[in-house]
Amino acid sequence: MGETTERTRIVAWQDPLPGSEAARELGGLEYLRAIARGELPAAPIADLMEFSLSEVEEGRAVFGCVPAEYHYNPIGTVHGGLACTLFDSAMGCAVHTMLPAGVAYTTVELKVNFLRPITSETGRLLCEGKAIHVGGRIATAEARLYDEADKLYGHATTTCMIFREGSKERSVGESRR
Amino acid sequence: MGETTERTRIVAWQDPLPGSEAARELGGLEYLRAIARGELPAAPIADLMEFSLSEVEEGRAVFGCVPAEYHYNPIGTVHGGLACTLFDSAMGCAVHTMLPAGVAYTTVELKVNFLRPITSETGRLLCEGKAIHVGGRIATAEARLYDEADKLYGHATTTCMIFREGSKERSVGESRR
Amino acid sequence: MGETTERTRIVAWQDPLPGSEAARELGGLEYLRAIARGELPAAPIADLMEFSLSEVEEGRAVFGCVPAEYHYNPIGTVHGGLACTLFDSAMGCAVHTMLPAGVAYTTVELKVNFLRPITSETGRLLCEGKAIHVGGRIATAEARLYDEADKLYGHATTTCMIFREGSKERSVGESRR
Amino acid sequence: MGETTERTRIVAWQDPLPGSEAARELGGLEYLRAIARGELPAAPIADLMEFSLSEVEEGRAVFGCVPAEYHYNPIGTVHGGLACTLFDSAMGCAVHTMLPAGVAYTTVELKVNFLRPITSETGRLLCEGKAIHVGGRIATAEARLYDEADKLYGHATTTCMIFREGSKERSVGESRR
Repeated sequence: MGETTERTRIVAWQDPLPGSEAARELGGLEYLRAIARGELPAAPIADLMEFSLSEVEEGRAVFGCVPAEYHYNPIGTVHGGLACTLFDSAMGCAVHTMLPAGVAYTTVELKVNFLRPITSETGRLLCEGKAIHVGGRIATAEARLYDEADKLYGHATTTCMIFREGSKERSVGESRR
Repeated sequence: MGETTERTRIVAWQDPLPGSEAARELGGLEYLRAIARGELPAAPIADLMEFSLSEVEEGRAVFGCVPAEYHYNPIGTVHGGLACTLFDSAMGCAVHTMLPAGVAYTTVELKVNFLRPITSETGRLLCEGKAIHVGGRIATAEARLYDEADKLYGHATTTCMIFREGSKERSVGESRR
Repeated sequence: MGETTERTRIVAWQDPLPGSEAARELGGLEYLRAIARGELPAAPIADLMEFSLSEVEEGRAVFGCVPAEYHYNPIGTVHGGLACTLFDSAMGCAVHTMLPAGVAYTTVELKVNFLRPITSETGRLLCEGKAIHVGGRIATAEARLYDEADKLYGHATTTCMIFREGSKERSVGESRR
Repeated sequence: MGETTERTRIVAWQDPLPGSEAARELGGLEYLRAIARGELPAAPIADLMEFSLSEVEEGRAVFGCVPAEYHYNPIGTVHGGLACTLFDSAMGCAVHTMLPAGVAYTTVELKVNFLRPITSETGRLLCEGKAIHVGGRIATAEARLYDEADKLYGHATTTCMIFREGSKERSVGESRR
């Protein structure tokens, strides 16, 4: 979705408005599956940073990304912002898969641990988010970021706030691991 | 550094290698001032996401950014990854300003709180990072993200690891606030 | 409130029920001032761990504690749980001071950085919590832990959920620092 | 290890010095197994707060605790400091099990999510910590807190610093989950 020549890239994205309207009418899992199949537009930031939703099921979402030079910080490795963006996406979507139509969420806080440097030699990374607890008002999730050899580059947790208008408290997915 | 027409942007960035070599030879504050003045290349990710270092002094760094549609998530607001990227930059650089030449650092973990949604109507945001503690092996910093009316959009803390080859433990900047 | 002889202490605490009932009827600041003056019982855990509320005002609460051998971990320093308990108290109470009668809160998450070891030689510690943002549903706060020479031992942030039954969203205390 | 009559408890603990000396001479797992078997003294804070190490193996440690009135905050539930103390213990010990004799660690930061209130009706809680990454200088771990019906009350992550004098970087336990 972006063409690279030398140190120039053409980034194209789609109007996020139709997708965000669909998000209100569909259950989270249905909505995210439509994005994964390309039937609804991806997030503009996914086109900007070149990552995409590769797997989604109830309580789980996986994003893929190939780190490149345009993700670099000034000290010679990929900027931590890339991993944060992938973690926020994977965990937010993992929570979203658990929400019925008409129930919205927002990320309240995010905590990321970086375990080793990422470079343009790292190759494709997968960021797997999993819901831990989805309650009436609060949901939490966790994520791991690893390469194709299953080497771990970082992990994260998040807290989301859930907006259930008029709906009762419920609790899902909180069994012992 | 990026031209926008409709929903297409041409992103251009510079080779990060010369800058990262300079980072090894200069003290952190000197190095970051050279970036702020445009004498050394900015981070490629700063060109990609359109943010820049606007102020830097000992223990403090401020980045500016105007949130745009290409920063959006699929649910109609700016993706949390933008704030995370700004926070990581501001706090990492605030720590970096306290390090002499030859001393490197890496971010170990980052914790972000999001207080209100950011949209393309929000206007210019400033992300101010401040070092809290710079010790022999560990440094910590905090940051705030606010708009031009000083409305607060989020705050963050970070832990960095410091690599002092052969140098003694020291402690700076840890007085009561 | 506890007598120490050799490695034995008698811990006495008060029924927390009357205090928690008062908490529902009083505004947060009024309630906490009554605890600080000794007119309402302190938390049982404060008697157990020997810490107390020493200062409280709108948006700010300070707890004091003298670390002792009974706070130790098995590896020769004070257990991190003591600092966490002080941080949770100071930040929760800082938020509570901003809440009117009838509005409850609960701590959703807590993040603590430990900067240096605490021992029984450290002397009296003060843990100062300050509200950062108090919104309609979410509040955040931060805290610092320092000794009488203003040496910093740790810092923390927290997210609380606010339960305003039927009350409108409001926003306080979010100016730039 | 503490006798309760009405709202008074006699707390007795042991000198932590011999145990902390043993900690330097034994590998972490061997040391913690000696504590679990009662051959080395538990942490004084474990006697104060009434919790104990119930299981320990490579990369994993479980603490048990029965929440009681003396753990209460002033607003009618168990204080968050109890969960934090259990999390810090379980995660620190999970990391410690991976360290050979002569290698020390310290907790740099801790992040806790609280999912539901704990009361004296909750019954026995188990806090299970697991190492995620044990590197040359940094280790991370996670933990869950649940009751005997496997209901989840909270979860946490931590970052520890490892002090390997003269030893090489190594990496353990970082496979994909």
